[in-house]
Amino acid sequence: MPCKNCSLKPVYTALNNESLCSSHFLKYFERKVCKTIAQHKLIDRKDKIAVALSGGKDSSTLLYVLNKFHQKYRLNELHAILINEGIEGYRNITEKDAKKFCRELGIPLKIVDFRKEFKTSIDKLKKKMNPCSACGVLRRYSLNKAARDIGATKLATGHNLDDEAQSILMNSIKGNLEFSAKLGPKTGVLMHEKFVPRVKPLYFMLEKEVLIYSKLRKLPVTFIECPNAGGSFRNEVGRMLNELESKYPGTKQSIVNSFLGMLPLLREKFQKERIRTCRECGEPSVREVCRACQILKI
Amino acid sequence: MPCKNCSLKPVYTALNNESLCSSHFLKYFERKVCKTIAQHKLIDRKDKIAVALSGGKDSSTLLYVLNKFHQKYRLNELHAILINEGIEGYRNITEKDAKKFCRELGIPLKIVDFRKEFKTSIDKLKKKMNPCSACGVLRRYSLNKAARDIGATKLATGHNLDDEAQSILMNSIKGNLEFSAKLGPKTGVLMHEKFVPRVKPLYFMLEKEVLIYSKLRKLPVTFIECPNAGGSFRNEVGRMLNELESKYPGTKQSIVNSFLGMLPLLREKFQKERIRTCRECGEPSVREVCRACQILKI
Repeated sequence: MPCKNCSLKPVYTALNNESLCSSHFLKYFERKVCKTIAQHKLIDRKDKIAVALSGGKDSSTLLYVLNKFHQKYRLNELHAILINEGIEGYRNITEKDAKKFCRELGIPLKIVDFRKEFKTSIDKLKKKMNPCSACGVLRRYSLNKAARDIGATKLATGHNLDDEAQSILMNSIKGNLEFSAKLGPKTGVLMHEKFVPRVKPLYFMLEKEVLIYSKLRKLPVTFIECPNAGGSFRNEVGRMLNELESKYPGTKQSIVNSFLGMLPLLREKFQKERIRTCRECGEPSVREVCRACQILKI
Repeated sequence: MPCKNCSLKPVYTALNNESLCSSHFLKYFERKVCKTIAQHKLIDRKDKIAVALSGGKDSSTLLYVLNKFHQKYRLNELHAILINEGIEGYRNITEKDAKKFCRELGIPLKIVDFRKEFKTSIDKLKKKMNPCSACGVLRRYSLNKAARDIGATKLATGHNLDDEAQSILMNSIKGNLEFSAKLGPKTGVLMHEKFVPRVKPLYFMLEKEVLIYSKLRKLPVTFIECPNAGGSFRNEVGRMLNELESKYPGTKQSIVNSFLGMLPLLREKFQKERIRTCRECGEPSVREVCRACQILKI
């Protein structure tokens, strides 16, 4: 079937079975991101946005789209933050691409290097602990601190619909519903004066849509995988979800929608813990000493 | 590994990796059902239990186990109810086996035949509508009425852990969380004066455990499938769950546990509708005319 709008050759068939050519796909994508931002009140004009940029397709697409909106709607400042965790043969390559991409877009890029910030690296820490848990904690910690340092009022991440559906299913399979209470398109609002709220503008975009967008826009995306990325359980659940989605189109969307219906209840049940201030570093923490400080002491 | 209790040849390895011989497996199974009944207050001594018997492994096992408890703990009366939906080449066979089984156990069996009760059958209805939805509605309707007619205070069904984990996952994938509010080991308490509360004593037993139990006890179980049984989506989800369970043992249990943590919130959110009395037949209904009456009018 040709594009429903202009009869040109289609590049994508949406869930409603409508085919879209390249330029109408790009419009569809951007409109849907715009709608997500509006409906879930992710960003307003006064916000100063920091985008967590890894150099992968999701965060690069997010930065590109927000930069378009930024120009169109004359939004407040837009920044990018890249975390260099010190993973040899991986982050040094993506860092170079990210720098070039930000230069091209004219977006200021702040780089946080674990080796300077923490006097360590994931390559070093992985000898003592699971590198992915350490990386997750220290990345979140550094992103928040860096976003606050540049005066950002929102931190935008590139999570897409696949990521969210996977997390929801993983948590419900593993019985970790309290982790699901931390999901959703917008988190951490009014949590702690030092915590920058997080938003996920690509929340309703399928991973394959993000991929197509990044290819059509010829974004300088790095497709190398982190050498530590095992995440076999996430991969397993992701594979299952792809299988279900191909047999029952709309599965991922439906999982996320039904989750959003439950999210207020989940938050009511699980998010009762007071967010305190870490005794050692002064950053937000649920414990007396935050997990980042705990990891760095090991 | 030999049986952890007596070193005999094992027939089953439980989730905690302990091997069990035939007689210790039977004990393990019965104890776990007993624990489920006690922990979730499914049955008490004053209850008169009606078991929904289909002749399959689950309901036959349930009837057998409850009959054992019935004798051991001198429970109140135990009855069985079989619904003959009028499905040629299927139910007539299982009905014969069920009659024989109840005779052997000395348990009174009440048979409800759709052809007498409703002057129709699923074989007839399937020409006009999806046979499985009609069958589900009319079975639930008839089981409740029959249980009430014999004065039962609880209706016990043979649902196992696999059934429940599948339903939970199916509902969350399809975005039907309001259906999940109707799951759980015990439902319908104080819902309507004419509604007999339902309990699932095999709630925490894996399907394969029920299968092994029914084989070891040499129960006269019918393994023929209903000719209408398609349920491709349930089968799909069941297959996925089996795959996950074999890679991550305990997955089904963990899905159900995490669901049980959420169930009170789900019920609070979704079970606010008043249960009324059907204008036509006087049975409990969420609508003015119950779904059974609606189906029978088509």
